[in-house]
Amino acid sequence: MKVLYAGSFDPITCGHLDLIKRCSDMFDQVVVTVFNNSAKKYMFTCEERVDYVRGAVKDLKNVTVESSDEMVAQYCRKNGIKVVIRGLRAVSDYEYELGLSSYNKFLNEDLETLFMVASPEYSFISSSGVKEIARYDEKFKDLVPENVVEPLRKKLGR
Amino acid sequence: MKVLYAGSFDPITCGHLDLIKRCSDMFDQVVVTVFNNSAKKYMFTCEERVDYVRGAVKDLKNVTVESSDEMVAQYCRKNGIKVVIRGLRAVSDYEYELGLSSYNKFLNEDLETLFMVASPEYSFISSSGVKEIARYDEKFKDLVPENVVEPLRKKLGR
Amino acid sequence: MKVLYAGSFDPITCGHLDLIKRCSDMFDQVVVTVFNNSAKKYMFTCEERVDYVRGAVKDLKNVTVESSDEMVAQYCRKNGIKVVIRGLRAVSDYEYELGLSSYNKFLNEDLETLFMVASPEYSFISSSGVKEIARYDEKFKDLVPENVVEPLRKKLGR
Amino acid sequence: MKVLYAGSFDPITCGHLDLIKRCSDMFDQVVVTVFNNSAKKYMFTCEERVDYVRGAVKDLKNVTVESSDEMVAQYCRKNGIKVVIRGLRAVSDYEYELGLSSYNKFLNEDLETLFMVASPEYSFISSSGVKEIARYDEKFKDLVPENVVEPLRKKLGR
Amino acid sequence: MKVLYAGSFDPITCGHLDLIKRCSDMFDQVVVTVFNNSAKKYMFTCEERVDYVRGAVKDLKNVTVESSDEMVAQYCRKNGIKVVIRGLRAVSDYEYELGLSSYNKFLNEDLETLFMVASPEYSFISSSGVKEIARYDEKFKDLVPENVVEPLRKKLGR
Amino acid sequence: MKVLYAGSFDPITCGHLDLIKRCSDMFDQVVVTVFNNSAKKYMFTCEERVDYVRGAVKDLKNVTVESSDEMVAQYCRKNGIKVVIRGLRAVSDYEYELGLSSYNKFLNEDLETLFMVASPEYSFISSSGVKEIARYDEKFKDLVPENVVEPLRKKLGR
Repeated sequence: MKVLYAGSFDPITCGHLDLIKRCSDMFDQVVVTVFNNSAKKYMFTCEERVDYVRGAVKDLKNVTVESSDEMVAQYCRKNGIKVVIRGLRAVSDYEYELGLSSYNKFLNEDLETLFMVASPEYSFISSSGVKEIARYDEKFKDLVPENVVEPLRKKLGR
Repeated sequence: MKVLYAGSFDPITCGHLDLIKRCSDMFDQVVVTVFNNSAKKYMFTCEERVDYVRGAVKDLKNVTVESSDEMVAQYCRKNGIKVVIRGLRAVSDYEYELGLSSYNKFLNEDLETLFMVASPEYSFISSSGVKEIARYDEKFKDLVPENVVEPLRKKLGR
Repeated sequence: MKVLYAGSFDPITCGHLDLIKRCSDMFDQVVVTVFNNSAKKYMFTCEERVDYVRGAVKDLKNVTVESSDEMVAQYCRKNGIKVVIRGLRAVSDYEYELGLSSYNKFLNEDLETLFMVASPEYSFISSSGVKEIARYDEKFKDLVPENVVEPLRKKLGR
Repeated sequence: MKVLYAGSFDPITCGHLDLIKRCSDMFDQVVVTVFNNSAKKYMFTCEERVDYVRGAVKDLKNVTVESSDEMVAQYCRKNGIKVVIRGLRAVSDYEYELGLSSYNKFLNEDLETLFMVASPEYSFISSSGVKEIARYDEKFKDLVPENVVEPLRKKLGR
Repeated sequence: MKVLYAGSFDPITCGHLDLIKRCSDMFDQVVVTVFNNSAKKYMFTCEERVDYVRGAVKDLKNVTVESSDEMVAQYCRKNGIKVVIRGLRAVSDYEYELGLSSYNKFLNEDLETLFMVASPEYSFISSSGVKEIARYDEKFKDLVPENVVEPLRKKLGR
Repeated sequence: MKVLYAGSFDPITCGHLDLIKRCSDMFDQVVVTVFNNSAKKYMFTCEERVDYVRGAVKDLKNVTVESSDEMVAQYCRKNGIKVVIRGLRAVSDYEYELGLSSYNKFLNEDLETLFMVASPEYSFISSSGVKEIARYDEKFKDLVPENVVEPLRKKLGR
């Protein structure tokens, strides 16, 4: 079974990586796709974000990393993917994701969404939180994969 | 009994229209008012938004369409409206609406807010979701009244 | 427009009464129905509960009080009622009520549910809370209509 | 990949069946296990519940039906199952399930829980709701697999 | 500042103990009171529950352990306590606690409620969960203070 | 015991002031700190915001007012503060605050967060709501401390 794990990954965090590892243990093939929405502002370019994800998952044999500027539902139809994995942290995540999975089902009837819960030690981590902390405190190092530490430092002029 | 159904309607969706029809069955008179907040950015002008609502409800005899740049509480006082109808989808809607109804009660003691739940088939539709989908996929046609299809297509250069 | 306000009313509280008064201001006719579920245990008999509601609303001309052991959806079909009013307090109320309104819609397509929010000063009051407090503290008197004070006292042997 | 879908199934509903079908499309093997908690009261015996699930899934080749009186975490360890599927309806489901998945992880580190969202048309259906409706209204027939209609009717003396 | 930490403690868990320790670090004096509601069924008698709490907190100098069959609001008035500490885990806890703190404020205007969030590693632990697990699995030992292990084992005939 | 009450206070509202007064009754020393995030836009300068808080609390002897552009966790470490007070209104506040308290704990292990619930009459008030109302209606005067009325009027050109 081939599954998609999608996100902005601006940048990839230890929370993302934990989910990707758990998926890699469960499923035959995991496609991690960096979605790029031209209406949104990112700290890192799409290429950088793909690079950092690739670096972080390089030891996981059944994981491939791609990028896309389509909607998830279309992307899956074109790429023969029938299952999307989404991570959940809080109740508000859950509500947002419920809406999203309805949209995806409307656009692509064959698409199933499976939800996984973030491990407790990562449940408070988000990309925006990491960027906020990295502005003020070296401890951000424990929240991102090793290969993301230097790029974040440089970007924030630490 | 005269009720107000208020919103930005940028643009009106099938979810809005479903609620207006159900109100029109229940209440003597339904005033649909397009509120215009100068601090917000819209895809369609206030005039366009009013036009599209008017086109969508033209067969409902007891529905009138207006626009306003006041607050709901003030608008109702001036227009002798004592009941506001609000649609609910998720729990987060509910919380937001609770706050709003407290504000309205604070500003206008006589104003009552009645909540209706969106029909399941429309519960995932929002104006912003429709605009997002319309960028990528022709299926947006099933989410808006017929008279909104062409204007959306034109605006997005499809 | 005729609306139903339904409940167990075991016993009626100031929170219930506040909602009934607000309905009586808004709607032409308000039917308050004490539903009796043979699977549930009540502190007061169905007859007592009807009596206390009647006593509490006796000055509201457009309010009638009934009882039933059917489901709400069937009761409304038989009695030509098309709109049910439900009070909301917390988010958990909202979720429960969403489910209930879906059931009612499934059983009776013509039935609409309108939700009203409890006034802040009554939002923490429930029948079970009142019974709990009445066991320990005279202050329960401020939480129920006057005609319920003596019956509660007697029942609890105060 | 082999997954477990667990429940009381007292009785199996169309909501359960929808989830089992979707799992059967996605995963190699689906084990549906009727858990029996001696501290709980059921309308149907464990054997009856297993029979009704078996009857409902008989056309799905990769689905097997079992029963157990253990905890899910232990059951999975003994049976070499590493993934549990849970259905979600409301936010309150989500919270309850979060707690449950933490317990299961505590008791069995290797166990992953994947959540699926109920299809909108089934999202209001629960076993207890079905039993409540079946007491009053023939429409319960649309909420359960065909082979459960007669047993429910008999049990409720309709 | 003297604070109350109240509960059923049937039995005390590592989650309770974590909160008591954190309170003992913050406040001058912590009163832990085992509330006994004659309408509820407990696994352990009130005396046993007090004993187990006492055993668990015996090294914390500023913590005293009591029992009561009153309501929290009354108990605090009689004992000159102005601040109640409550632990929060999920959103549903929060809603329940909001209601409770309103009741307490109604009954005793001077009473303040302060909420603390359970540490992540204990956030899934409840007394009822511990009792459930202890029926099936020796791992319950990691969820309760050491002095509660034997009594639980005995009670459940392990 | 010294506690921190932190916020943007753009501007201070009656809801903030109610919490500060209640803290001032409970704790030995209350530090109110106006946090200034250079990435955010404010209506009032940091100096103005500090001035308005100072004016509003001038009769509370154990309250001091400061400002900072650090993160709360760092600020507390430097200033020897071990307890942060946060006000809660809705469930969505609660979720946001849970995340925040996890971040603070990650950055500063010794930091405890205590939550207080807004008094019902202030529970719908937020700084952004006050600014919205002040644009349209003189009633905003009941939502802010007296010394904030004129500055708000001036800023909005009323």
